[in-house]
Amino acid sequence: MHYNQDTIAAIATAPGVGAIGVIRLSGPQAIEIVNTLFPSKDLSKAESHTLHYGLLKTPEGELLDEVVISLFKDNKSYTGEEVVEIAAHGSPYILQKILEVCLQHGARIANRGEFTQRAFLNGKMDLAQAEAVADLIAAESEAAHKTALNQLRGGFSKDLHILREKLIHFAAMLELELDFPEEDVEFVDRRELYQLIDDLMLKSQVLIESFGMGNAIKKGVNVAIIGAPNAGKSTLLNALLNEERAIVSDIAGTTRDTIEEVLNIDGVSFRLIDTAGIREEASDQIEEIGILKSKNTLKQADIVLLLLDITTVDAEELKHWNLLFKEYSDLPILWLINKMDKWKEKELPDFIQNLQPQIKIAAKSKENIETIKQRLFQEVMDGKVWQEDTVITNTRHYDALRKVVIALKEVKNAMDNEVGSEFLAIDLRVALQALGSITGEIDMDYDILGTIFSEFCIGK
Amino acid sequence: MHYNQDTIAAIATAPGVGAIGVIRLSGPQAIEIVNTLFPSKDLSKAESHTLHYGLLKTPEGELLDEVVISLFKDNKSYTGEEVVEIAAHGSPYILQKILEVCLQHGARIANRGEFTQRAFLNGKMDLAQAEAVADLIAAESEAAHKTALNQLRGGFSKDLHILREKLIHFAAMLELELDFPEEDVEFVDRRELYQLIDDLMLKSQVLIESFGMGNAIKKGVNVAIIGAPNAGKSTLLNALLNEERAIVSDIAGTTRDTIEEVLNIDGVSFRLIDTAGIREEASDQIEEIGILKSKNTLKQADIVLLLLDITTVDAEELKHWNLLFKEYSDLPILWLINKMDKWKEKELPDFIQNLQPQIKIAAKSKENIETIKQRLFQEVMDGKVWQEDTVITNTRHYDALRKVVIALKEVKNAMDNEVGSEFLAIDLRVALQALGSITGEIDMDYDILGTIFSEFCIGK
Repeated sequence: MHYNQDTIAAIATAPGVGAIGVIRLSGPQAIEIVNTLFPSKDLSKAESHTLHYGLLKTPEGELLDEVVISLFKDNKSYTGEEVVEIAAHGSPYILQKILEVCLQHGARIANRGEFTQRAFLNGKMDLAQAEAVADLIAAESEAAHKTALNQLRGGFSKDLHILREKLIHFAAMLELELDFPEEDVEFVDRRELYQLIDDLMLKSQVLIESFGMGNAIKKGVNVAIIGAPNAGKSTLLNALLNEERAIVSDIAGTTRDTIEEVLNIDGVSFRLIDTAGIREEASDQIEEIGILKSKNTLKQADIVLLLLDITTVDAEELKHWNLLFKEYSDLPILWLINKMDKWKEKELPDFIQNLQPQIKIAAKSKENIETIKQRLFQEVMDGKVWQEDTVITNTRHYDALRKVVIALKEVKNAMDNEVGSEFLAIDLRVALQALGSITGEIDMDYDILGTIFSEFCIGK
Repeated sequence: MHYNQDTIAAIATAPGVGAIGVIRLSGPQAIEIVNTLFPSKDLSKAESHTLHYGLLKTPEGELLDEVVISLFKDNKSYTGEEVVEIAAHGSPYILQKILEVCLQHGARIANRGEFTQRAFLNGKMDLAQAEAVADLIAAESEAAHKTALNQLRGGFSKDLHILREKLIHFAAMLELELDFPEEDVEFVDRRELYQLIDDLMLKSQVLIESFGMGNAIKKGVNVAIIGAPNAGKSTLLNALLNEERAIVSDIAGTTRDTIEEVLNIDGVSFRLIDTAGIREEASDQIEEIGILKSKNTLKQADIVLLLLDITTVDAEELKHWNLLFKEYSDLPILWLINKMDKWKEKELPDFIQNLQPQIKIAAKSKENIETIKQRLFQEVMDGKVWQEDTVITNTRHYDALRKVVIALKEVKNAMDNEVGSEFLAIDLRVALQALGSITGEIDMDYDILGTIFSEFCIGK
């Protein structure tokens, strides 16, 4: 059964001039509409998954373009509805004109993401998969691409589906207990329930914890380069970018005080944020100014590279850094001990030796720069149980999973306090609802759907 | 027979993020290459003009995207070769990645316009039609679109083909005369030849003359608004643009002294060039400065709107304008007599009455603004024998047609001076060569072809 009885249309290719541009129609009248504009052949008699070359004309005979029509019938389409795609010459003028003529002949302009929304509503994909489509289109790195593609392929939804099936099983058993209150029988072994809730919470927690890095993968990992003015920050920046120049793009910083450059390590984008303000400041007030500016950088950072000049660093400087990082205790710090080529002593000072993890480098002669890159990559991948199918990248999923964990905690509390099954059942239903909202397995609020799909581009 | 034995590939949709992006391959290995990346189905066994949904993977198993493949076999394609189009998610990252994988597996990156070049070389279209493809993609107005589409459909080429057939007929007859020199026989009735050359020259001349306006249609018509500082130029500009605000775009002028705005009248783009420098200049040196700045504007103008303030204009001012336009005697001028609402006399002064064509307006109260628009449109359409199929828009065609006319004049001269048939034949061959170069009916220099197609976008 179709969700919508109207037919939507939109330009599906990127705006601007190209060799080919595509207008996409979906809905019960898609073929009928295009048929009135395509005199050379009766498309309604053509088979699904066929291509048709010909002239597109208004019913009044005005020639629009030479086109190739793609037909997707019998709901074997992206949206699960009749879909027609018109491939025309890629001029914005022509594409707009053809779209207008389609609208004049019965189509309605599609909302953002409405094709994918229909695919979801017609059961062609679950909600998490639908959301992955937008991520996939926006993916700018290999890791972001893989994560989104995996989510689109259902890897992510599968995990959630398993979690939810287990929850449903519990809930059903508890409802059974409620149906036979006088029997005072427990269909659910409470120890088993504890164990399963712990498993579920752990699974949810892993996904929740993947969000920070999943989000970083999707959006790129912000790396703050912090250090005193003479520590060699810009030399380090250049050394890191050196071999990558070809794939590096300059991004104007959001403030005049920071410079951002993108470093790609094994498919993950690292946005290197250099505090240019500190670098250029050569006064004695470095501690004050430096720490103030660094704080701004740290707010947006996922990882910090803290650069120390071994030839000048003292316990006093270190005290300042420690003070600074008190507020950011969750932020991973890599201590980079720079100018090691100029350090002739046998041992490092005690207050340096204790810094962990640390990498000894010489930015100018590019010693150990590769180690920094490996370490950055490991920070993203390590200890986060990072696999493509257990990473969440979407704030909505993150929020829902947190609701799941909170509800499950309530279930545990209730069991600890030997509260009746009816209360357990209520909390389990909350968890089920939250989990179902991710994949859209429950009835979704139309406003929420609207919000989700409004972030899509037109034509998808 | 294929022109090229290698297979080319390119991204065919506009750059940037879209719902769908298309990678196009053409050449003998197109299907073979995509087949190695499309494990779910054997595309070599599929029929032409069919669509195939599935996963695109590297032979090593790395998932690239969910795609829909379009197959054009048996040379029933745009290029006349095996063509495969891969419709993927419209992320620049994915499209680039898929293109790279295609290149790794035997395709070569396509040059600009190389798909269309192959279509020409494989006889799917003549050269003038191929050139129309680039014009069609770049078309930004209805008139430009129609002219290019008509040329693509062969309307233009048909005319040229007829001209050329007639020339070939003459040339053949003359060669016959050369074969029987001792007979002293004339196979060609010289009076008939005169008549036919005149017809040909007239036809060529019509096309040559259409070039100015054809080019203006393609690129937009430059309208210079000229007048003294107080004549009301910016009021006129606003009045002209008033009802068109929605489709007007601001274009930063090439010099700081001019402002350009685009006015669309019945599908033709008029670029209104206002000499801001004059407008803002309120000194007594208006004649000098004004005329100097106006000259720059006039150099790029196709039509002039000359605005006179009826309340201040005198014979002296008019003298200055006439002096200015001496150098631009070919440029059509519309004399706009402004501020007519303030003119209470019965008659206009004599020196104004003589100005033709003139339109009496009141820019401030928008009186007769519509008449200016109609007049501008007529200037483009009228007296130019403007029909879509007799307009040339391409400098290369223009140059070739001028060569045709020059060669035909030589033929006439030779006949006037009763020069022998062998000289007539030589000049006719020059004309034939020039005419054939337009449609590519003669062997084309590869460099010339390269130049023509290098102006295309990638993927076309």
